[in-house]
Amino acid sequence: MENIFTHEYFMKKALIEAQDAFDKGEIPVGALVVVDNRVIAKSHNLTELLVDVTAHAEMQAITAAANFIGGKYLTGCTLYVTLEPCQMCAGALYWSQISTVVFGAEDTHRGYRIMGGKLHPKTEVVTGIMAEECGQLVKDFFKKRRK
Amino acid sequence: MENIFTHEYFMKKALIEAQDAFDKGEIPVGALVVVDNRVIAKSHNLTELLVDVTAHAEMQAITAAANFIGGKYLTGCTLYVTLEPCQMCAGALYWSQISTVVFGAEDTHRGYRIMGGKLHPKTEVVTGIMAEECGQLVKDFFKKRRK
Repeated sequence: MENIFTHEYFMKKALIEAQDAFDKGEIPVGALVVVDNRVIAKSHNLTELLVDVTAHAEMQAITAAANFIGGKYLTGCTLYVTLEPCQMCAGALYWSQISTVVFGAEDTHRGYRIMGGKLHPKTEVVTGIMAEECGQLVKDFFKKRRK
Repeated sequence: MENIFTHEYFMKKALIEAQDAFDKGEIPVGALVVVDNRVIAKSHNLTELLVDVTAHAEMQAITAAANFIGGKYLTGCTLYVTLEPCQMCAGALYWSQISTVVFGAEDTHRGYRIMGGKLHPKTEVVTGIMAEECGQLVKDFFKKRRK
């Protein structure tokens, strides 16, 4: 039987979160935490609404996942996020020792790779899943905001 | 008249926060945000109590200060923290565009400078304020924990 739980399957759900952020006037980034094909946390960027630079999608997903698990380490978990994490979120993911990070579009301006941040050496990274759709939503957002 | 509002004056208050963390069994790091010599946020590390790797002293101080100000940018603010920020906290401070970061002890293992993180180019950094006292508290903590 075909495995429906592909990276694309979960990234589509993260994109729905990103669209929610878009609709609220937030930079459209969505995130999920998944364990054994089960979504245990979902979130989207809320920096404007919460008036808080720390309210990135990934940060909320990490906190919510740890709350669900009842432990602060996310070993065995996968984070899906529509945009490459920034150094803050990479730092939080580092501390969480999360097993896998899957992201969609790269962030060539403020992504952790260009900013010099690091994920945990044990964390596997998968890039470019639905990159075009994930990136287009961000482009649409900034195009709309400039008008 | 002598200015009592020195870096040491505020770092002592941050150390009281760090001691609070120590007393709760948390890695002892304390932080303050100061504007015009007024403390608008104070916090200490609560990662164990909140079961959340994102609950570093600086993260809480940034959120609390933004809440106090009613805006997410901390321009004009100074963060005092007893230990050099990690890459997550450096990333949050970067987004906040905070004017000044003053830290006590350096963190040669997980500090943002060794990990490759960046503060905002507009942020002034002052290091080594009460470094010995700030560092000693962390050493005492790990010594106690190993017992």
